[in-house]
Amino acid sequence: MASKLDSLLDRFAKQDRLALARLITRVENRSAEVSTVMERIYGRTGHAYIIGVTGAPGAGKSTLVNQLVVKYRAQNKLVAVLAIDPSSPFSGGAVLGDRVRMTDHYRDPGVYIRSLSTRGHHGGLSRAAREIVKLLDAFGHDIIIIETVGVGQTELSVMDLADTTVVVTVPEGGDGVQVMKAGLNEIADLFVVNKADRDGADRIKAELELSVHLRPAVGWRPLVLMTQASNDIGIDALVQAIGRHGDYQREHHDPARDGERRTREFIEVLTSELEERTERALKNGAGGSAERVLGEIREGSLNPYSATRRIIEDHAAIARLLDEGGPKAVRE
Amino acid sequence: MASKLDSLLDRFAKQDRLALARLITRVENRSAEVSTVMERIYGRTGHAYIIGVTGAPGAGKSTLVNQLVVKYRAQNKLVAVLAIDPSSPFSGGAVLGDRVRMTDHYRDPGVYIRSLSTRGHHGGLSRAAREIVKLLDAFGHDIIIIETVGVGQTELSVMDLADTTVVVTVPEGGDGVQVMKAGLNEIADLFVVNKADRDGADRIKAELELSVHLRPAVGWRPLVLMTQASNDIGIDALVQAIGRHGDYQREHHDPARDGERRTREFIEVLTSELEERTERALKNGAGGSAERVLGEIREGSLNPYSATRRIIEDHAAIARLLDEGGPKAVRE
Repeated sequence: MASKLDSLLDRFAKQDRLALARLITRVENRSAEVSTVMERIYGRTGHAYIIGVTGAPGAGKSTLVNQLVVKYRAQNKLVAVLAIDPSSPFSGGAVLGDRVRMTDHYRDPGVYIRSLSTRGHHGGLSRAAREIVKLLDAFGHDIIIIETVGVGQTELSVMDLADTTVVVTVPEGGDGVQVMKAGLNEIADLFVVNKADRDGADRIKAELELSVHLRPAVGWRPLVLMTQASNDIGIDALVQAIGRHGDYQREHHDPARDGERRTREFIEVLTSELEERTERALKNGAGGSAERVLGEIREGSLNPYSATRRIIEDHAAIARLLDEGGPKAVRE
Repeated sequence: MASKLDSLLDRFAKQDRLALARLITRVENRSAEVSTVMERIYGRTGHAYIIGVTGAPGAGKSTLVNQLVVKYRAQNKLVAVLAIDPSSPFSGGAVLGDRVRMTDHYRDPGVYIRSLSTRGHHGGLSRAAREIVKLLDAFGHDIIIIETVGVGQTELSVMDLADTTVVVTVPEGGDGVQVMKAGLNEIADLFVVNKADRDGADRIKAELELSVHLRPAVGWRPLVLMTQASNDIGIDALVQAIGRHGDYQREHHDPARDGERRTREFIEVLTSELEERTERALKNGAGGSAERVLGEIREGSLNPYSATRRIIEDHAAIARLLDEGGPKAVRE
């Protein structure tokens, strides 16, 4: 008996873009079926190369991403863009009229563009982003570009997903860039000084090279590249540098680190599944002892920490909550 | 038999600032005892008035917070400041030399200042912030000011803790402010146009007033105030406006909404306790079936979603993980 989900997954496997879009929407809405979907498509992931592009608003990230799409399409690669950026034209929040529009690419079936709103995710953003990337990967994309503004803990953690992280700065970034450099410095595989025709480009390049030089001399040393994305200057060199970083990682492949990465991913999936199931069960009106505890919480006669201990230490209560928030309960 | 934790809590109850500092550090480090601490101090919370101050880097938030501290100290109130802001001078990351220093207040026993690093919290930042605020409240502070840059999902969610949220903008904020206004608009109880002597102050005030006017005409309507924090202009009016918002909330007190707020807090505490216990147990080397699953994850023969389902559906396995990551295991 083929369920609606089965037929959606079948169409996904045949590269139906509408099925992809629908599955991404389920991930965004945190449907109870998400884990089942991921379990079913997981075996087909691992093919795509994932590029993260991050930097302050106004650094020209969207223009740069647009140019990268053009280059990879010229190599006949299937490209997906996931924009997690309130200021991105992809996510509809553009405030500057002069930004390059991605709409041309919307007509190209070799490019899939999707934005992920940062609103209403309550910390589940990085899980949603990870799962959408898995869907884009399993669908058959060769290149996945994640664009995000490099501010905020959640937004930074999304960059964990990238094989190569590109941090984009501009000469006149001023204190905003200064502030962010602290955190972004640590995650950059490549630095790009965009709008490199402007005053101060050489200075910021020298600063970034110094910061790279001050790192411990082990592993990959980030390169600092100059681009003028809107004039297609330096983009080919950026594509080459991304390729070099990819080669470096393959050559210096470390099975122990792979194991650690897989363990981290598992812990994230397990803990957020616990969180989502519990939240779902409590919101849908869980029965039994959890219901009584909720009543006392509402009237203020029990504090949340005592309530939590009471539920977790009662193994039957926590098991019931986890079952009720699971996919089976919803399937009926 | 009084444990080390018991004596720390005793000293905390006697308003020993060192004990407060130590308990905050345990919260920051996610000690397994945190939930026990919170359970013990929870009954003494609910006294403090919590003010959130947020806005873009460079908006003068720190100067404004500094002035608010001066005003509340003049009323003989005990004041605590919690800075969650990588660019704040409190958290040591100041990039501009001209910022007002809070160091004067460090000598005043009526002011407690603490910064919370946004690094390494992996989404647990809002839980840590909530618990530190509870500690500051239970300690006996009258006013707690939380300062954060209003960017990023996690940083925004911290503002949920505030009784009154003040959003600070500046005339020349440009696109950065524009970008953030989208999200900040919804959480503001009061808008402050700081550096109001600069060009464009009237324009941004008119814009903010329009945005307030466009809100549905129910409940509190945010006020827009002009300040020059560094010259102590407009700060008394801000203190009055905060008081008016507090009065409004007391007059329009809604028991049903209190129940919802308590339910949300409980769900957050329960789900993050599940998360932290599981993570702790897996990192410390959990025994039994979880250990076997971890091995398969590490070598890549099992995907994280199937592994998660296997553990959650095995009630004994998940109960064991939750016990092993709990406070008892650590106490031995």
